[in-house]
Amino acid sequence: MRERLKVAPNPAMGKYLNIPAMESDAKLNFKNMMRINQAHVLMLQKQGIVSREDAQKLLSQMGELLAEGPGVLPMDPAFEDMFYNIEQYLIGKLGMETAGRMHTARSRNDLGITVIRMGVRDGVLALLPQILKLRQIILTMAREHADTLMTGYTHMQPAQPMTLGYYLAGVAEALERDFARFLQAYARLNTCAMGGCAFAGTGFPVDRQEMARLLGFDRPLENSLDGVVGRDFLLEIAADLAIFGSTINRFTQDLYIWHTNEFGYVELDNSLAGSSSIMPQKKNPHTFEHVKAKTAHLLSSFVDMTMILKGVPFGHCRDMSEMMGTFYHSLEETEAMLGLLTANLQGLNVHKEGMKERADRNFCTATELSDQLVKVEKIPFRVAYQIVGSVVGECADAGLDCKAITTEMLDKAAMVYAGRAFGWPQEKVRQALDSAFSVANKESFGAPGPKAMAHMLGVLDENLAADEKARQALVQAQETARAALQEKIDQTLAG
Amino acid sequence: MRERLKVAPNPAMGKYLNIPAMESDAKLNFKNMMRINQAHVLMLQKQGIVSREDAQKLLSQMGELLAEGPGVLPMDPAFEDMFYNIEQYLIGKLGMETAGRMHTARSRNDLGITVIRMGVRDGVLALLPQILKLRQIILTMAREHADTLMTGYTHMQPAQPMTLGYYLAGVAEALERDFARFLQAYARLNTCAMGGCAFAGTGFPVDRQEMARLLGFDRPLENSLDGVVGRDFLLEIAADLAIFGSTINRFTQDLYIWHTNEFGYVELDNSLAGSSSIMPQKKNPHTFEHVKAKTAHLLSSFVDMTMILKGVPFGHCRDMSEMMGTFYHSLEETEAMLGLLTANLQGLNVHKEGMKERADRNFCTATELSDQLVKVEKIPFRVAYQIVGSVVGECADAGLDCKAITTEMLDKAAMVYAGRAFGWPQEKVRQALDSAFSVANKESFGAPGPKAMAHMLGVLDENLAADEKARQALVQAQETARAALQEKIDQTLAG
Amino acid sequence: MRERLKVAPNPAMGKYLNIPAMESDAKLNFKNMMRINQAHVLMLQKQGIVSREDAQKLLSQMGELLAEGPGVLPMDPAFEDMFYNIEQYLIGKLGMETAGRMHTARSRNDLGITVIRMGVRDGVLALLPQILKLRQIILTMAREHADTLMTGYTHMQPAQPMTLGYYLAGVAEALERDFARFLQAYARLNTCAMGGCAFAGTGFPVDRQEMARLLGFDRPLENSLDGVVGRDFLLEIAADLAIFGSTINRFTQDLYIWHTNEFGYVELDNSLAGSSSIMPQKKNPHTFEHVKAKTAHLLSSFVDMTMILKGVPFGHCRDMSEMMGTFYHSLEETEAMLGLLTANLQGLNVHKEGMKERADRNFCTATELSDQLVKVEKIPFRVAYQIVGSVVGECADAGLDCKAITTEMLDKAAMVYAGRAFGWPQEKVRQALDSAFSVANKESFGAPGPKAMAHMLGVLDENLAADEKARQALVQAQETARAALQEKIDQTLAG
Amino acid sequence: MRERLKVAPNPAMGKYLNIPAMESDAKLNFKNMMRINQAHVLMLQKQGIVSREDAQKLLSQMGELLAEGPGVLPMDPAFEDMFYNIEQYLIGKLGMETAGRMHTARSRNDLGITVIRMGVRDGVLALLPQILKLRQIILTMAREHADTLMTGYTHMQPAQPMTLGYYLAGVAEALERDFARFLQAYARLNTCAMGGCAFAGTGFPVDRQEMARLLGFDRPLENSLDGVVGRDFLLEIAADLAIFGSTINRFTQDLYIWHTNEFGYVELDNSLAGSSSIMPQKKNPHTFEHVKAKTAHLLSSFVDMTMILKGVPFGHCRDMSEMMGTFYHSLEETEAMLGLLTANLQGLNVHKEGMKERADRNFCTATELSDQLVKVEKIPFRVAYQIVGSVVGECADAGLDCKAITTEMLDKAAMVYAGRAFGWPQEKVRQALDSAFSVANKESFGAPGPKAMAHMLGVLDENLAADEKARQALVQAQETARAALQEKIDQTLAG
Repeated sequence: MRERLKVAPNPAMGKYLNIPAMESDAKLNFKNMMRINQAHVLMLQKQGIVSREDAQKLLSQMGELLAEGPGVLPMDPAFEDMFYNIEQYLIGKLGMETAGRMHTARSRNDLGITVIRMGVRDGVLALLPQILKLRQIILTMAREHADTLMTGYTHMQPAQPMTLGYYLAGVAEALERDFARFLQAYARLNTCAMGGCAFAGTGFPVDRQEMARLLGFDRPLENSLDGVVGRDFLLEIAADLAIFGSTINRFTQDLYIWHTNEFGYVELDNSLAGSSSIMPQKKNPHTFEHVKAKTAHLLSSFVDMTMILKGVPFGHCRDMSEMMGTFYHSLEETEAMLGLLTANLQGLNVHKEGMKERADRNFCTATELSDQLVKVEKIPFRVAYQIVGSVVGECADAGLDCKAITTEMLDKAAMVYAGRAFGWPQEKVRQALDSAFSVANKESFGAPGPKAMAHMLGVLDENLAADEKARQALVQAQETARAALQEKIDQTLAG
Repeated sequence: MRERLKVAPNPAMGKYLNIPAMESDAKLNFKNMMRINQAHVLMLQKQGIVSREDAQKLLSQMGELLAEGPGVLPMDPAFEDMFYNIEQYLIGKLGMETAGRMHTARSRNDLGITVIRMGVRDGVLALLPQILKLRQIILTMAREHADTLMTGYTHMQPAQPMTLGYYLAGVAEALERDFARFLQAYARLNTCAMGGCAFAGTGFPVDRQEMARLLGFDRPLENSLDGVVGRDFLLEIAADLAIFGSTINRFTQDLYIWHTNEFGYVELDNSLAGSSSIMPQKKNPHTFEHVKAKTAHLLSSFVDMTMILKGVPFGHCRDMSEMMGTFYHSLEETEAMLGLLTANLQGLNVHKEGMKERADRNFCTATELSDQLVKVEKIPFRVAYQIVGSVVGECADAGLDCKAITTEMLDKAAMVYAGRAFGWPQEKVRQALDSAFSVANKESFGAPGPKAMAHMLGVLDENLAADEKARQALVQAQETARAALQEKIDQTLAG
Repeated sequence: MRERLKVAPNPAMGKYLNIPAMESDAKLNFKNMMRINQAHVLMLQKQGIVSREDAQKLLSQMGELLAEGPGVLPMDPAFEDMFYNIEQYLIGKLGMETAGRMHTARSRNDLGITVIRMGVRDGVLALLPQILKLRQIILTMAREHADTLMTGYTHMQPAQPMTLGYYLAGVAEALERDFARFLQAYARLNTCAMGGCAFAGTGFPVDRQEMARLLGFDRPLENSLDGVVGRDFLLEIAADLAIFGSTINRFTQDLYIWHTNEFGYVELDNSLAGSSSIMPQKKNPHTFEHVKAKTAHLLSSFVDMTMILKGVPFGHCRDMSEMMGTFYHSLEETEAMLGLLTANLQGLNVHKEGMKERADRNFCTATELSDQLVKVEKIPFRVAYQIVGSVVGECADAGLDCKAITTEMLDKAAMVYAGRAFGWPQEKVRQALDSAFSVANKESFGAPGPKAMAHMLGVLDENLAADEKARQALVQAQETARAALQEKIDQTLAG
Repeated sequence: MRERLKVAPNPAMGKYLNIPAMESDAKLNFKNMMRINQAHVLMLQKQGIVSREDAQKLLSQMGELLAEGPGVLPMDPAFEDMFYNIEQYLIGKLGMETAGRMHTARSRNDLGITVIRMGVRDGVLALLPQILKLRQIILTMAREHADTLMTGYTHMQPAQPMTLGYYLAGVAEALERDFARFLQAYARLNTCAMGGCAFAGTGFPVDRQEMARLLGFDRPLENSLDGVVGRDFLLEIAADLAIFGSTINRFTQDLYIWHTNEFGYVELDNSLAGSSSIMPQKKNPHTFEHVKAKTAHLLSSFVDMTMILKGVPFGHCRDMSEMMGTFYHSLEETEAMLGLLTANLQGLNVHKEGMKERADRNFCTATELSDQLVKVEKIPFRVAYQIVGSVVGECADAGLDCKAITTEMLDKAAMVYAGRAFGWPQEKVRQALDSAFSVANKESFGAPGPKAMAHMLGVLDENLAADEKARQALVQAQETARAALQEKIDQTLAG
């Protein structure tokens, strides 16, 4: 294959490029490359470009090679890459007259990008159930904690009461969008460049639609240059991972903070915590820390790939092959991130009493009191806000908590801002400041009140079920394509 | 509004936060915030939360304010932000008893995110026609240059002949995907958080579906916490811009290289080139350089926003407000990038003769010769490749170009690799090495041959038309919502 | 200046490039560009390249222009940029015969990079005192809180007692390194490319050393191509900003967490907190959130600039001009970040009692107890660790805090792990678990014990003083150069 | 070690965290961790914290373990990490009474960061000679090509003539700065945190200066919290790598472009080029493409590490451990990048004739003609520029190259702009437009003229020699420290 160059690759090229690439290909891409070889030979034979006899020999030998695995290949760096090592292996077995015809009407370029698309497809199909599992776990917890009262925060300050279930449902909705992005990206990923050859198509009468079908793709790409050189599908999935990572990071950051001694809302199972080598009291949430940090890998992978492409022509260049290590690494990190997070969630203890107790004391129900004043006394919201703000300020200065608010304090402020006292019984004040009362009231669409929450969980469950169905359809389509390919191979071998 | 805090904001807060925010809000967000105020008052009145009379006063005064513009607002940094300045203005005009009711059953949080979503929506709706215009220009050029022969490159080395039209069609297909991403992101963007209040919904009987409709949103978000705190929709659009920028960068990089003296394929109109202050001969493609560089701003904006969110809870925090300057800046850079690129394309000269001449000499037709040997002599592709590779290597060593290949050279190599001479007339060799012949042959689906190309351009035109239709539907939906809001205002004022 | 191109720049070029560039130049670069013009004319005259008479006319007119400011320039986009507008203005005033000689033996390229280096130098010189001020404030607080006991955390879990002063001294040491990086980068920044012309130097007998001196640079760059096209000095400062931002982010993150209700260690002055529009109780640490978020802008600026350079030749290209907006924006953000942070620190309340109280209860003194067992009982550390770990685990299971540990509990565990009881009086146990006792013991070099701390603060103060002196030397060098330039101008005008 | 937690780590923790960490530690960190263990025991004994006898047993067993390697360790994930596995191994061999004393007065935190600093130090010390080798190769080539004439480009358009040697010297000067940054970063890296324990120092009388000396560090860090938690030294080296990568990228981009058929300036040795599987004529510069792409990994590593730290307290957290894989990966990529680049340079063919020929035709000497008009005719530079610009424009319109310029054309334009003809003999015009003449003239400091160039190469060679000396001093310091440690071990064992 180096007739023009005459000499073998330089050792530096072998050490830094060819050998690592072959090792990685053997691990990640052997099966997909062989499947493309099979489909290509079938197609060539169907189109009359190679004879049935040659096709039979090739398919038979390929079957053997697939069974034996890449270990039987010479993997000589002088042959540049795995593709050539396969070709050389087949030539060795079948002779040039037959095996020298396999690579008709295609190129390493359309082959390479198709191997990439199939590998990425495998990766995405392996990722989807991990996300769905996480959503499932979170929704189960959300139902379980639909009435677990807690402080909701803005700016990390106590803001309004909510429930843990409500918080989790919010995360679940965000994850729906993250999932949807992968699904939409999949449609752009699952298109086929085979037959595009180096980038300019071919004069041989290939059937690109057939190739797409045999390899489980939805359709061939319209323009073969775009098919061979486009990598936006890869950037897109990398971006979707980065955005997904951002959701995971924010969620995990909350759990991590809630796991502090000072918040004390949640607690990891001891099996998921780390010890200290000198501090005997330690129960360290290492796992949360790694989950948080791993999300950074997902962003940097996107940066890496985008940076690689900067300055690269809209033409086939080897720069792009450096994107793949990064991409597969980010899939591995995603698996680890999700594996740790789901383990953490499954063993998470929730300290309900402390959560409720704090919500009742930290003034997060002050808005409810304002709202009640508006509802009962018909005063403008801003006036109610001023009254309650003034009372709360007084408490804060005196170091009192929310339970200290009395009807007298309220009336004193009411005189100032509303010009009259309301004379509420203390019980009414107390009730307005109870976190359970406040949450029970919040029945606007999408709010944590019990009816709103039941509706919300119903919708989120339905969406999860629909997404699982969509995922199964993708898997099914692949199985169907795989079976069809095998059937055609069998027919050809038998024919 | 600072009853709890009692003191006015510190000058540093004013200088670095409040004043710049108000200036930016006045420029970017005044109209959208006022529109939300109008819709909110309408909804409060419809739901019986404020009286018709108060609603009329508020809507009437808001109409005046909208007509006068943000210049009449005090914009006092002591009031923290534009929202409060509007409220204070209305209280000044209408009194607390009326204007103090406007902010019932909402918060700056749901208001703020809704303003953001509306502003981003405006930005995306302004971006879409710019992309479509670029696609239109490229497709027009692609038709015009459907038979403009040129060298296709891989690794920036002459690879196979193609046409300029074929190249441009490839770019156009890539831009289809870029456009599709924005369209899909739009659906996630165009959802409404109004009624979510601080994040926990409200006990007032608000109608969130009505608010969504009045503000041109497709639907309310299911969970109000997610509605208020989710920013993945923003990251997604930023990522789509970065990926789009990557396509633009690769395309522009090619044009820039083709604009060098050495390639000499394209030439900017003089009005789009820069001079040198000391080199009198200079015609500098500054505009291409700025387009390339501006694509970097799109990636860094995504990094910026993702980085801001790192470590931020899934709760409302001001960190997120720092994302907006970055985002709007990236939209401005995108406009400049596209403005320059489309101007460049519209005045681009193409040097057809030089392009064809080079393609006929630089061996890019060697694959065609191999393919012809396969077709005519029925030899395996790999053998044909060896024969031609050996001939080309001989030429390269002798410093000859492709036109120097003779039937004798071919037969000499054929004897070595195929064991026989083919005895082709020289004219047949010459023809196989002619770039026009090669391109005319490439009629596989998606290839540059005339029939394949005509089909491809037809599909790309159709897709462009469909995307333009989709864009118009989005614009129409906004106009309808805007008209409906005004009609309800008029009815209420009249009622 | 467009004799070769003949036509004026296209409107898109004006709108998106020339006009914004001139506006920015007028604001940021006018004075520095004029100073270079003055120095260049002085040098040309000294070297006999222009006559004394022409030099006098030019310097006199330049003096006027400097006094009037850029507002008098035509700023016509047809002249491309501010440089040409100045030249045209001078030609208009003095005629071509004189003013047409100003641009001899230089180019916009060496001029442009020198303007950049001077502007960046101004920016760095303005930044340095801001960092020193922050260090000063932190060190003052560190002395003030040298014995303010608090919990030190690892993994955000109570780990060992420390003092607030010790924590702050740690931050101060990190900031020393951040400062040192800027100082070292300054030496690479402060080198001069004038005389490098387009990049290839000149045949005129220029004096580059003189130019460097007159403009306050340490020396000319050795290779003029490198001088004109190198931008690593800019990347370096951007990287230093990003790293500095990382230090600031971590510090602010701690303050932000300590400001939560649950930690309650520090509290912003009310004037630096934000309110809520509906939650009357709110005191929001907006300012911390903005500081944190602004650090992200510093990283993304580095990404932006590095990304712009990707694929750009080691030659002069306009891509690089897109780096400057990003860079100056990041300096502005740094100023805001530091302005807010120093304001926050200056008004920060520290809740000492709560800090001490928590440290005494949350088991963070458990290591001290182990250490005491080692010292007193001579048992191996790992055995002591096992004993205390077992006791603490027992307390944790029983929901007890650290004060509950008794000598009986200790002895029970001691029997298991050390095979004997120690029989300590309860007071001895209590003392070992007192945070004040533990900190007082920590007298290793660099530890929070009183003597170690006094030494440490001494060193940090000395380093601060030395850095301030280094900064003053840089400022002084600039003032000296500025005075020397003016003196030479006066001499030439007088001569 | 998990007395408090009681249970073993969860399988997910083992799979995703502990096992990969131990594998990586065994490969990268075993020797350094053991060296710290040795030094720590020596210091404990010197300070009277452990007995001579215990120290002897520990040192003796450690010597054995070091000889056997990490393969003898149990590496049980239940022991969390390699540190604990070593401790358990020693306890197994020596008993708790002795081996349980090793970890006195330290923690995994100061141990961990010290292992990191030693590993990074090893990495930087391995990197420095690679950079110096590259500078050496480039400077050798620069001397060899000091008079190889070529076109210098701005905006990738022919600008002025230069020499290849001049270009290479420019790159070499940029690499000097890149090297200097690593050297300065080394000083911040090479400081010691041992004795800082968890972060708060210790009450045991440790000798931190001694530990620093024994481990080859310049000094202990002043504040132990900063010592344990600071990672800016790592960010700095990562940033320096990214900036270095940027220099490499620009240089390689030029070589890559010059390697195109159209430029044809340089040509890789065949052994460093790739072939095509279907295009027999191909000689693809894969190696340049990989070098370019690998520079992207260096930027993204910096982003990754900075992103990980975002939101992490100024306290010890496991998030930071995720930085290390990224960092070591970037060192590997740097080695590959430099290995490929130096191989490429060593086998690079330079096509001198074509370079000179093009420089004489592409108008890059037009500035020289202007300069000659200024020198000879004493006209203002701007007038000379106008004359030449007008002539060149005329040629461009007529499709003529630079050799076509006649004295008549010049005089015609001179009449227009200078009001008189110059009447130069054609030979004088020809000479002014000869690239060799122009370069020979460029004798300003830092220019490509022969004297300036000889001076420049002298300086660059001296700087290289000085940097090599500085590198050797660092290596020597490490060898000295290593020998001193071994000597103390031997003394103790013998004592």
